[in-house]
This record gives sequence, C-alpha cells and structure tokens, in this order.
Amino acid sequence: MSFSFSLISKDEKTGARLGRLATSHAATDTPAFMPVGTRAVVKTLSAADVKEIGYNLILANAYHLYLRPGNEFMETCGGLHKFMNWPGSILTDSGGFQVFSLAKLRKINDEGTLFQSHIDGSEHLFTPELSIKTQESLGSDIIMCFDDVRGYPVSEAEASEACRRTTLWAKRCLLAKKKVDPALFGIVQGSMYENLRKASAESLTALGFDGYAVGGLSVGEPQELMAEMISVTTPLLPEHSPRYLMGVGKPQDILDGVARGIDIFDCVLPTRNARNGTLFTRTGTINIRNSRYRNDSSPVDSECCCSLCRDYSRAYLRHLFSEREILGLRLATIHNLTFYREMMEGIRLAIKNDQFGFFKKVFLARMEDSDD
Amino acid sequence: MSFSFSLISKDEKTGARLGRLATSHAATDTPAFMPVGTRAVVKTLSAADVKEIGYNLILANAYHLYLRPGNEFMETCGGLHKFMNWPGSILTDSGGFQVFSLAKLRKINDEGTLFQSHIDGSEHLFTPELSIKTQESLGSDIIMCFDDVRGYPVSEAEASEACRRTTLWAKRCLLAKKKVDPALFGIVQGSMYENLRKASAESLTALGFDGYAVGGLSVGEPQELMAEMISVTTPLLPEHSPRYLMGVGKPQDILDGVARGIDIFDCVLPTRNARNGTLFTRTGTINIRNSRYRNDSSPVDSECCCSLCRDYSRAYLRHLFSEREILGLRLATIHNLTFYREMMEGIRLAIKNDQFGFFKKVFLARMEDSDD
Repeated sequence: MSFSFSLISKDEKTGARLGRLATSHAATDTPAFMPVGTRAVVKTLSAADVKEIGYNLILANAYHLYLRPGNEFMETCGGLHKFMNWPGSILTDSGGFQVFSLAKLRKINDEGTLFQSHIDGSEHLFTPELSIKTQESLGSDIIMCFDDVRGYPVSEAEASEACRRTTLWAKRCLLAKKKVDPALFGIVQGSMYENLRKASAESLTALGFDGYAVGGLSVGEPQELMAEMISVTTPLLPEHSPRYLMGVGKPQDILDGVARGIDIFDCVLPTRNARNGTLFTRTGTINIRNSRYRNDSSPVDSECCCSLCRDYSRAYLRHLFSEREILGLRLATIHNLTFYREMMEGIRLAIKNDQFGFFKKVFLARMEDSDD
Repeated sequence: MSFSFSLISKDEKTGARLGRLATSHAATDTPAFMPVGTRAVVKTLSAADVKEIGYNLILANAYHLYLRPGNEFMETCGGLHKFMNWPGSILTDSGGFQVFSLAKLRKINDEGTLFQSHIDGSEHLFTPELSIKTQESLGSDIIMCFDDVRGYPVSEAEASEACRRTTLWAKRCLLAKKKVDPALFGIVQGSMYENLRKASAESLTALGFDGYAVGGLSVGEPQELMAEMISVTTPLLPEHSPRYLMGVGKPQDILDGVARGIDIFDCVLPTRNARNGTLFTRTGTINIRNSRYRNDSSPVDSECCCSLCRDYSRAYLRHLFSEREILGLRLATIHNLTFYREMMEGIRLAIKNDQFGFFKKVFLARMEDSDD
C-alpha cells in the first residue's frame, strides 16, 4: 500500500496537528481542505484549474458515479483519474450520506440501503460490498466505509441502531476490499450523543482503519454541539492516523476543527457560494451581485493571488454575473478555492510556528466585516 | 495612427490574399477569424483562454456595451482592453446590425435609429456620432461605421434607401471620429442587388476608409446569392485595404470568402455550436450529446492540439454535457475556436504555397462526414 500519513508536529497550545498524507498519486500537507468534485468534476473547473489553484487531493462521490456513468464504464475507461484527467489524489465518499440526503429511501436494514435514484427513480440496493466495489472501480486513493447516516435530531435509540449498523458495515467493508492500494477510512457516527460517539470511535479503532472520519455532523445541529462531538471523538482516535471531518465547512468550522485535531476537510461551501456570487475575502464575504460593486475597479481581495484578483476588477466580475456569463462562475470558484487553499497554508504555517491560536483569532476577527 | 495592413501575397489561381493587420495592441495574420466577445467576454472563456488558443483579434459590440455597462463607466474604468484583461486587438461593431436584429425598432430616419433596449425596454437614439463615441469610449482598435442594415428579402427601393443612408452616415462617422488611433472601416450594403452593392462600394471608397466591410449578408439569403454579392463587391475595394465579411460563417463560407479576397471574418457559430454540443472535427461535425459517444475513449478530434483533445475523451465531454456541468461548455468552446484557428492557419499556409484551391477542396471533402 502506497498510502501513508506522517504526523509532523502538534501545536503546543491547541490540539492542532501538522501532517503529510501521501498516496501513489500525490502528497498532501495537512490540515488540508478537499475541493468537492462529486460528478468527476469540481464544478466549473477543469482538473488543470484545480491543480493550478494548488490542490493535490479532491473528493468525488461513489453514489453519483455509480448511477452515472456506472462501474462498468469506469473500469473500462481506466478509472476516475484518467477520466477526469486528474493527476492528484482522490478520496471518494461511500454513498452513505447521499442515499440519506439525496435519494428517496425505500428501506434500510442490515443488508444495506434500498433507494430510488434521484435522477430517474430507478431502484438500487447499496451494500457495504457494492460501495467498496464502486470505489475500487473508480480507482480512488482513499475510500470510505459505507455508513448509516441519520439527520438531526434523532432519538438515542435510532442513533444507537445506526451506530451498531455502521460498525457492522465497517467490518464488511474491510472484508470486501480487494485492492491493496487504496486506504480505507472508518466513519465515526453517534449523532449528538457523547456515549455513542465514544462507543463508535472505540469499536472502529478496534477494527483498525487507515484513517478515521467524523461523520454525521453539519446536518443542522447548533455549532456548539458539533464542536462538542468533535471534541469527544478525536481524543479516542489513534494519534498517527489521519482524521477527516466530513462535509465541513465554513472557515470558522475549519479553524475550530483544526484546533480539535482534525486533519482533512471537505465542503461544497466555497464552490457553491462562488456560483451564488458570494466570495470570501480576508475581510469578510462579499456578494458581487451587490450594486455597490458596479464601478469598483479594485480586485475582489487585494491580498489574493488568484487569476480573478490578478486580472480582473470587482466591476468586471459583477458585469459577468449581471450578464449571466458563465465565466463569472469559474472565476469566482477559482477565487474561493484559492481563498481556502491560502487559509489552509496559513493554518499550517501557524501550527509550525506554534501560533495557531493567535492565527485563528486574527483570521476570524478580520473576516467579521461581511456583506451578509 | 498605429493601424496598418500589409498585403503580403495573393494566391495565383484564386482571389485569396495573405496579409498582416497591425494595431497598437497586436499584429494578426490574415485571412483571420475573430471570436465574438459581444459583452466583453468570449462566452465561457477568459481572455487568457482566448489568447492561449491563439487569437490576437476579437470582436465586441458597441450596442451591448453601450446599454451595459455604458460609455461613462467604460471611460472611467480605462476601456474594454483593461476591463476584460485582453492584451490583443479589438474590433467593435457599430450597433447597426444589433438595433436591426435585437432591439425593438421605433423609428429610423436620417438622424439615426430610435430603438428600445432588448434588456429593459428603455428608449435610445443611436446616431453615427453616438456609435463612434461609444466605440471610442471602449478604446477599440478598429471601429465600424454605423450603418442601416436590412433583412432578406427587401425591395430594391428599400435597399437603395438603406444604402443612401449608410453612405450619409459613413460621412458623419468620419467627421465624428475624434481619436487618431482607431482604424475606421466603412460597411458596404446593398442587399442582394448588384447595382446597389457596386454603388455602395464606390461611394465608400470615394470617402476613403482604413478598411471595408461587406455587411448585410448571411441574413437568410441562399448561399449562392451571398457568394455573388461578395464577388461583385471585393473587386471594387482598394487592394491594399483589409476586407471584412461580417457575421460569416461556416467553414465552407469562410473558404468561399477567402477565395473571393476576404481578409477578416467573425461569427458566433463556433462558440454557439460548442454550447449546443456540436463540435467541429476534421472529418465533420459531431454532436457530443449523441449516445454513441457514451463509451468513446477517443479524443473529439485526434488531429487537434487543444486542451479538450489532449486531456479528455469524448466520453468525458459527453458526461459533462449529460450532467449539465458547465466545464463542458468551456472545453467545447476551446475546441471549436481551436478548430477555426487551425483552419485559418491552414488557409494561410496554403495561400503562401499557392495551393489554396487544393486545400479548400480537400478540407471540405474531409468534413463531409457529419452527425447532422
């Protein structure tokens, strides 16, 4: 197996960690943010764009790519890297979250999840075995266990049942994995119940995975609850394995997660916000559709080195959005992903210098002046 | 004035010409095709993309940019080159065609054209003076006379009246031009009437312009009629001035135009077709939405060097179109504009080698095998 994770250092005052995650395709410094490329494309961008922005690791989704273009196609075409011309690493989500959030659920039992496709209503049974097979067909570098995800709030009984099933399925994922190369991550569930989170973390670490994800968060719960659940989970995970906080998040959430020992993040926020005209800047978010930017010849963020901020004014980006010219969506996406990449670089540098707490405070204070 | 046009050579057997058109921004070898960047953007592409594909000269439109973002804004922001970050040359159309084709026409008389904006219904009077002022505010390298365009078919009386007005307005455009730098082109009208075309060409050349356009074609007339009108016009234009065939066209039309001594072309065809999934290849057009490309791992055109053909399969492009991922629109646009750029390069090389007739025949014969 060519997967490895090295813990390089820890911030003295917080739980923040500096690490390096390597696959056969690329090495990625952690804490790292993964752009979301659900359907074999980071929306609006070519793989070359994503690389140029400075990413080595992206996320794709087993659920979507299983439905279209399908496993058989993916195998004959040589896998996802080749299909989308992406030279870096790929982590695929198992589909556990998507059958819960996107599909019309028909039935869930210990065998798997029966659901209707959100595309054409066709019925499919997703099992741990099929999820692993799908992710192996994609040729992912990091694959995730198929888990039983629930929303917020759920009763303790329901959360407990989902936890039990998640562990059962995690065992089957370990057995189902045929390829040596990909790393397999377990996903800690337990909703907002401390005892369940702990039990889930303990049973998964007992099974032994290449990395561990904290799942089932950012599903509508208050921010404090999310922070609390991360806090009870990470201390129970092996120090020398990478920790991935799924579907998170806002800059504040990422900084909080890093402080609690999280190494990897993914979220649609920077890319989705970009398409809505909301751009992150060091002094807060701006919505470029706002008429105040009509004659604004300054760049979106004067401290940003992306091609939008280097080559164009706020007025031009606003013009593109006003005229519904799709170049605007791409430029905004490039900017927001650059913002996230630079934020993660700042985080890593701060950890290295034992100044993460200070960095976090200053970063968030500067961002307070937002349009919204 | 930094504008110049050098006639380098003529094909011995046809009327095809090899030339070089220079502005203060860039030199462009002719025959040349101009990508259409109506609203300060070549749809789906950044200026850097357009440059990378190999273009030095693009077209933008006075009508659209006058309505939004407007002349005052354009002057304060430093002109169109800076606004859209385009280092090459810009030719702007005068708005004559657009008030005819897009706006709701209210009244046309010798003063100008009263129309309602296609965006918000607001009423505007476009005059030769306002068109020139608009194009000067944009900082265009080549500006066009404001002309009186009619559709097809029109009576000889109506066409004659439009010709008379076009000449009247051309005189006023010459007088209205304040800046030294931009080149001003006259536009020959006359609908499908030989005598009117001749009279229009003669009166415009008598006034003296930096270049001459053949306007009012490709408005629904049969291909033979268009060819005939070009044939009667170009011999009457000064040999050492550039000739621009407006809004044309298909590869066949461009090859025919070159054979009749045209130097510059523009058309939305390659960019619009791209967004509809129709891609030009050396062996004909293909529509990438067609299910036959679902598992096709070959490039769109194996002889093309664009980033789509270099990095991606037909199957991936089809996947992007199926999933409505806008990266597909950009990649297809890059491809089609590369196809046109390479076609123009082929044309120029053939003229240089006195083989244009042969090149044209082979090029069109190979393209016969299309999806449509």
